[in-house]
Parts: sequence; C-alpha cells; structure tokens
Amino acid sequence: MNIKGEFVIGASAVTGSASAFRAIDPSTGQHIEPPFGAATLDDVERACTLAAAAFDSYRETSLAQRAAFLEQAAQNILDLGPQLIERAMQESGLPQARLEGERGRTVNQLRLFAKVVRDGRWLGAALDSALPERVPPRPDLRLRKIALGPVAVFGASNFPLAFSVAGGDTASALAAGCPVVVKAHGAHPGTSELVAKAIMAAVASSGLPEGVFSMLHGDGRTIGQALVGHPAIKAVGFTGSRQGGMALVRAAAARDEPIPVYAEMSSINPVFVLPAAMAGGAAKIGSGFVDSLTLGAGQFCTNPGLVVALDGPDLETFCDAAATALQGKAASTMLTPGIHAAFNSGVERLSKADGVKLLGRGQQGTSACAGQAALFITDAAAFLANPELEEEIFGASSLVIRCGDIAQFRQVAEHLDGQLTATLFVAEGDREAATHLLPALERKAGRILANGYPTGVEVSYAMVHGGPFPATSDSRSTSVGATAIDRFLRPVSYQDLPTWLLPEALQDNNSLALWRLRDGELEKA
Amino acid sequence: MNIKGEFVIGASAVTGSASAFRAIDPSTGQHIEPPFGAATLDDVERACTLAAAAFDSYRETSLAQRAAFLEQAAQNILDLGPQLIERAMQESGLPQARLEGERGRTVNQLRLFAKVVRDGRWLGAALDSALPERVPPRPDLRLRKIALGPVAVFGASNFPLAFSVAGGDTASALAAGCPVVVKAHGAHPGTSELVAKAIMAAVASSGLPEGVFSMLHGDGRTIGQALVGHPAIKAVGFTGSRQGGMALVRAAAARDEPIPVYAEMSSINPVFVLPAAMAGGAAKIGSGFVDSLTLGAGQFCTNPGLVVALDGPDLETFCDAAATALQGKAASTMLTPGIHAAFNSGVERLSKADGVKLLGRGQQGTSACAGQAALFITDAAAFLANPELEEEIFGASSLVIRCGDIAQFRQVAEHLDGQLTATLFVAEGDREAATHLLPALERKAGRILANGYPTGVEVSYAMVHGGPFPATSDSRSTSVGATAIDRFLRPVSYQDLPTWLLPEALQDNNSLALWRLRDGELEKA
Repeated sequence: MNIKGEFVIGASAVTGSASAFRAIDPSTGQHIEPPFGAATLDDVERACTLAAAAFDSYRETSLAQRAAFLEQAAQNILDLGPQLIERAMQESGLPQARLEGERGRTVNQLRLFAKVVRDGRWLGAALDSALPERVPPRPDLRLRKIALGPVAVFGASNFPLAFSVAGGDTASALAAGCPVVVKAHGAHPGTSELVAKAIMAAVASSGLPEGVFSMLHGDGRTIGQALVGHPAIKAVGFTGSRQGGMALVRAAAARDEPIPVYAEMSSINPVFVLPAAMAGGAAKIGSGFVDSLTLGAGQFCTNPGLVVALDGPDLETFCDAAATALQGKAASTMLTPGIHAAFNSGVERLSKADGVKLLGRGQQGTSACAGQAALFITDAAAFLANPELEEEIFGASSLVIRCGDIAQFRQVAEHLDGQLTATLFVAEGDREAATHLLPALERKAGRILANGYPTGVEVSYAMVHGGPFPATSDSRSTSVGATAIDRFLRPVSYQDLPTWLLPEALQDNNSLALWRLRDGELEKA
Repeated sequence: MNIKGEFVIGASAVTGSASAFRAIDPSTGQHIEPPFGAATLDDVERACTLAAAAFDSYRETSLAQRAAFLEQAAQNILDLGPQLIERAMQESGLPQARLEGERGRTVNQLRLFAKVVRDGRWLGAALDSALPERVPPRPDLRLRKIALGPVAVFGASNFPLAFSVAGGDTASALAAGCPVVVKAHGAHPGTSELVAKAIMAAVASSGLPEGVFSMLHGDGRTIGQALVGHPAIKAVGFTGSRQGGMALVRAAAARDEPIPVYAEMSSINPVFVLPAAMAGGAAKIGSGFVDSLTLGAGQFCTNPGLVVALDGPDLETFCDAAATALQGKAASTMLTPGIHAAFNSGVERLSKADGVKLLGRGQQGTSACAGQAALFITDAAAFLANPELEEEIFGASSLVIRCGDIAQFRQVAEHLDGQLTATLFVAEGDREAATHLLPALERKAGRILANGYPTGVEVSYAMVHGGPFPATSDSRSTSVGATAIDRFLRPVSYQDLPTWLLPEALQDNNSLALWRLRDGELEKA
C-alpha cells in the first residue's frame, strides 16, 4: 500500500485541504515524504455526523459480529507487513524489535477485547423479578449497559501502534459499541494512515456502517478542539502531556453537554527501596533500575522518575551501581525534536536546582534527537520544599531522594501527586515499613508493584493503567486491560417492557449464555 | 431526643456559631423552633480533616463490620420513633404515610447496601496468574476496587429522609468505604439533626473512627462550596436543581485536583403514548397519568412533565379524562415557600407561552404553600420551536404534545435533553413505532418503562436512577439501587506483592468467598 498523505472519513480516503505537513525522521531531523493535508472543520463535521449515524446500529451489533470485526482489524494490521514497521521506525526513531513487539501488543489488545465482547460480562446484565403481590407491586426491572456514543481518540506519540490509531482507547471504545474518530498524532502520520486504512477495510468487510471509524490529521488546537466540542462526541480518550490533556478536559467541561475525558497525562512513578531490600541487593537493584529507566529512551508513562531510599552505605552502593550502569547506556533517538528539546531543558533545570546533585549520565549520541540519560540525587527536605522537583521530565531522567529516616518515606509518599504506579522493593525485614506505607500508595497510585520495575504494562484482566489526578483525569478507570471497556458504557434500566421490545441480553431465555445477576445472585444459563 | 439546633462533627454535637436560621412550616409559613447555627469554615475544615484521618482505617474495615454498621444506622433511625416523622411532617409539609414509607425506604436502602457490602462483588476482584516462562515473563497481577476517599453529600429537599442525611448517596458512599460529610438541606434541619445523631451513635457503637460521618448546617454558597473545594473531599453526591448542581460541578472542576460530581438535576420524564395503546385505553391512561403527576404534589425527580401523543379523538378522550381527574385532585402543601413560588411562576410562564393552552387545573388549596396542579397542551411544532417549553417545572405541571403523525414522536424524542426516565404506552399494534423509538430513548434516558408511570423508583439491583446530561452530571452511574456503590470506587492493581502485603480480598485462599475473575473466568471459592 502506498502512503498517500491521506486520512479516513468513513469509507473514504481523503486528502486534506488544510495546511500540509510532513513527518520528521528524529534520527536525522529531516522531513519524510509524502505531505499530509490537515483536516478542515468540515471534515470534522462529516466524520462526527457519520459516527452519530452509525451509532444505534453499531452498538446493537451482535457480540459475535463485533468481536469478529475487532479480530479482522487485528489481522489487517498484521497483513500490512514490514511496511508498517519500516514507516513507524522512520517516524518514531524506535527500533525494529520494539515496534514489532508493539505491533504484537496492538493486535493482542484487539483480540483480548474481542474475547471480552463475546464474554458479555461488560453488559452488567441484571434482572429483578416482578413482585405483583407486594404492596406497592414491584415492577420487572432489567439492566444492561450500553455504549456512551461516538468517542474521540487522540493518538499518543510514544506508542505509534499500541496507543495510537488502533491502540487501547480505540480498541476499548469499539468493543463497547462506540464509533471512534481518531485525531492522529502529528509525529507519525504515515503509520497512522496505514493503520486507519486497515481498520476502514475491516469495517467494510464486516458489513458495518462506515461511520464506525474515521481518522483525521491536523493539530490539537483546531481539529482536536473541534472534535471534542462536537455535539455528536460523547467521550474522549487521550494519552499525552498534562497540558494537552487538561486542554481537552476544559473543552469537554465547557460544552453545553459536558462529556467524560479519559486523559492519561503525567506520572513520575516513584520507586521506594525499603531498607532490608536495599541491604539484600543494592547493586542489583541499582543496575536493574537503570535498565528500566533507559528502556525506550525513557519514553514510557511508567518510567521510574523517582527513587526513595534511606541514606547510608547501602544507598551509596545503589548509586554507584546505577551510575556505572548508566555509563554503559547508549543514547537512543527520542520520538520528536520537541520531546528531545523538552527532555534536555528538563535535565538542565534539574541540574541547576538547589540541593540537587548529578549522579551520572548515559552516553552521548550522534543522532539528531539522541537522548542522554541522567540520574540526580537530592534529600527529602529539599524534595518536599520544591514542587518543581516533582514535575515529570519525559525521557530517561530520574531523581534519587535520600531519606534521613524511614518516617520520611511516608512523608514523601503523602506529598506526591497522583501516579500511574508506585513501586516497592521489600524483603521480609521490611514488613512493618511496607505495611505502613501501603495505604498511602493505594491513595496515590493505580498500580502498586513489588520487587520489579514499572515499565512493562501487561494487557490483561487485572491491569490498572490509571490513577489519581494528574496521572489521569479520571481515576475511576484504566486505559490498559480488559476493564478499559467499562469507561465507555452507561447503564440503562428497562421496566416492564414487553418481551418483543427487550434487548436480547435481557430476555428470559438468556440465549447469549451471559453471566447475569438475577435478584441479586450471579447466574449463568 | 430533644432537637437542639446542632450539627455533628465526628463524635461531637456542635452548635454553629455562624448566622442562625429556623425551619419553616410550609403549611403555615411560620418559623419552627429551635434556631440552628450554621457551620463556619473552621467547622468544614474540622469535618474534612477528621474524614481524611478516618479514611484509611474505615475503607479497610471488614465486609462484616461495615455491613453491621450500616444496619446499626438503619436501626437507630427506626428507633427515633414518631418524633422523626412528626418533625419531618412539620418541616416538609409531606403527609405521615408518605414519610413513614420514606423512612422504610431509607432503612431498606441501608440494609440493601449492607447486603451488597457483604457480597463483595463491588470489589471487582480479578487475578491474573504469573507466567514466569513466557518471554517476557508475565507478573502476578491482582485487582480490587478501593474507595475514592471522603465524599461530600448534599441533602435533597424532596426526600427529607431517603435522599438526605442518611439517604442513597450517604448509604452508597459509606458502603464503598468513603467517610461522608453531609451538607444538610436548609428546609429540614431538625429532621437532619435527628438522623445525623442516629448515624453518629452507630459510628461510635460500631467502634469506627469518628471521622466516618459528619453533618453540617449552612448554605450552599459558603459551606457547600468550601466543602467541595476542600482537598480532603474526593467526590460529591447531590440531588437538586440544575443551577445548584452545576455550581458544584464547576467548583469541583476548578480545584487543583478535579473530582467527580454525581449531581442528579433536572428531568421532565416524557411519556409517549403510542396509537394502539391509546386506542385501547385513553381514558384510563389519562386518569392514571394524573395520579402519577400529582403524587406528592409532583415533587419527584421522575414526575412526568410531558405527554407525547397522536392528534385525534383518542387524544381528546385522554385529555378529557385527565382534566376531569385533575379537578378531583386536592392541592398539596409544597416543600418550601421557594419551591411553591417557583412552581407558580413556572405555571404562569407556561400559560402565557405561544401555542400553549390550559387543559385543566387541580383544586386550589388553603395552606400557605398549596400547589395547584396544572395540565397544558401544545403541538409538536410549537414544542420543537420553543426551548422554554422543555424546562422542568418542579411540581405537578405537565404538557401534552399533540403530534400530527407518528414520525413526530421520534422528532420530539431526538429533540429532548437527557432524562431520568422515558415512558412508553404500547400495545401489540405499536410494535413498529416502539421499535423505531426505542434507540432514541436509550440514548436519552436512564430508565425506560412501559405501560406504567415513572414515579416510584424501586431500590433494587437493576434500577437506574440516572441518565444523560442534564438529568445528571454523569450518566455512567445511578444514584438509586445497588450499583450506586460503584460511583465511589476506583481500581487498584497489585503486581507481584508478597502474600503478607496483599489485601485479604486478593489472597490465594479467597477466605472471603468472593466472586473473582481468575485469568478471565469468573469463579467462587
């Protein structure tokens, strides 16, 4: 398939008539052909109108049909073959193995949601029997969840496949029965075009109305805001910066009809190394930490940006091991010139902050956007006094917090903003300290992990990739894992409906073999 | 128990030092003793600080202990005896039988949530097994839901028991593990004091930290806004006017850390009478409709404020029967002088609107706040052209929309804002029309009912008392029924935690005998 510089509105490939742009190869800083025309406000209107028109029909597709569509989309993405990987490498600077892995993740995500759709637990089906003899009589009540409506999805720069056009937000919204309009990320328009056309083909071959999926090029301030402001759009999924996310949150709140925004924004993912664990393996934890810190040039939402540890010789061992490991880490090309520049200025800011000392740096690189990893150290008092030290630096930069006593671990935890993850290194001897720390971490983070590193987000049933503000704009949900489908649903109750008017999921015979709550007890056909 | 004009902060009864006010008997317009001192901003601070301090401990009470606490609160409310009913009658103008029924509903609500807590499905427990041999290895992941944090609850005027101090929002938040700070409604401060002290006693006798419950007197603009703006508060429950609800939504969004607001606001609850159903019983539907319209002086969120029907002789029969039934309806005392005045001006506005004609009125009353029911008629074109006709008039006022053809039913439905309920009168002959209408109603309403009236909201598992904006500020939830607990929860994932650090609900042995998702399959011990 040639990359033509197009976007997708329903069944049509469109060359945008607004200002054109080209992708940039971050390893060279050079433009990549072809040019991409941005969408106009009319294009936004068309995509949203088609999505609204498709909604009633798409949300009532059978579980089997919707699942098969998701699987077809996955297959079509695989069938793009090496071209997809090559273009994504060029546009993102990410290496081949990483992008092949990410493609696998993208495909598995779609397949997991196909399984989730078929299972039907997401419907939350509940039936309360009528009690005609009661005074007053109890009606027959049946509940199911239905899709919220068309969803606007904003592709992320750091996962050009798994959190972009066919990424987690798109997969979970489509699974819920929501048509999707994607605003593609400007850093990988060619990758986006390829994937969008793969989904477009799956919509057509699955016999679905064309409005189920559209994807537009253009910038967030015009196209993005118009999309979020459109009356047909009923929810928003976003992964990116706090500034970008909050702009969408504000736009959604200012609508005549406010809508939910699921923005995954900013997190520094603290790692608490408790004393007994540190004593048991300071050097190993230090070098493992640097592996996690520098993975993918540190361009993960779950990158560990903070290490909290007790002052003393074990911490020195940790720091020496980390600094040594860092010296062995080659620079990686960062995703975009903008991200690279922001990383450099964040590292510079940190290096000049009061009470902050450089522990070590990774190797310098030769590519245009080479990110040179950095590790700093400060003490708890300085950290607690300076809110700037808590700001996320997107990339491989981290700060060690030296605590004078174990009580300061909890102080630091309580001081932190909401996080995607919080990590504990614990050994048997840390029982009391860990037990004391856990409630604070539960209040602050969506995922708590022990004796591991937060990078690596499993796509499964028990994953939470979310957390209190500002990690996300809505802590009640996750953007990775099976329960992400719940974000795009709302409950509807049906009272005394004649059988012929009831949705199939709520019919007496339970022909879909769903788990259902019958008078408060779970049962299956 | 004497009513002392107090509120409750944790374990302390407090006489407020801010400006004092008295309740008003709406049947006479006279003040009722004693005076109530409003809370100060210091009181708000104390209540919120206590709630925050109680949170970690309260949210980890055992399921059994928390359920027993809810049941004790219910019992203590019953034990208040006739005094509670008498005071509520005086403060609300509502009749004894209605308030006794409402007390039963309040108590049953607390008991239902006790059952829900014990059942533990709300925890959403999910376990994904580790796959150490996989490349990369899959960690052990376990998910449970935890409480959001302290919740601010705003009592409603129209349910001085069931949606006030110990009402649905309080019950569901306490069930979820959230401490609650109630801002009592100014219309029934004595009722509120009695109920608050019943809960305070239950907190103490259940051995819970005092901050689990507080209740403050004062107005929404100072005390209410301070409460919603307090950093310790993590969610808000509200039932009342659109103006009041939106003020809280805006305040919550303007915080450094935005928080969810569950505001149940405004709904006109359309009733669509399809032609075959109308032909089968126009007179009966008309008189039944008037019974629903005038129930409790029309002061229900689910009061049917709109009837949509086909023009013709059957509609005339409906209107004649409704007008006749209305003439027989005595005026009821409305809840407050303010509500009464707003009702009268709403009815006056409607009576002067272009193309609107009065069909009939109920009887005039003699009490100070007697609400005289009213029924109007207009045609679909006039309704679609004038947004004012869609505004809720709180009280027993309704508007019949005369449609020229069946296609206008859908036009009216699509034109409507979000609703708590939508009602269909249908017979076999209406299949096609009803099937065509249903998708629009699903998009617009939280509950769809057939051949009945929307007043009467069952407290059960399959109830949804919610709906798209402006019926509520968050259509993803319900404020009545068992699933209301879900509003106050967020998921947390635990990765590779040592057994001794894992919450009991996620331990391998499933000692709580919970329904859990194990690798995607539901299972019980």
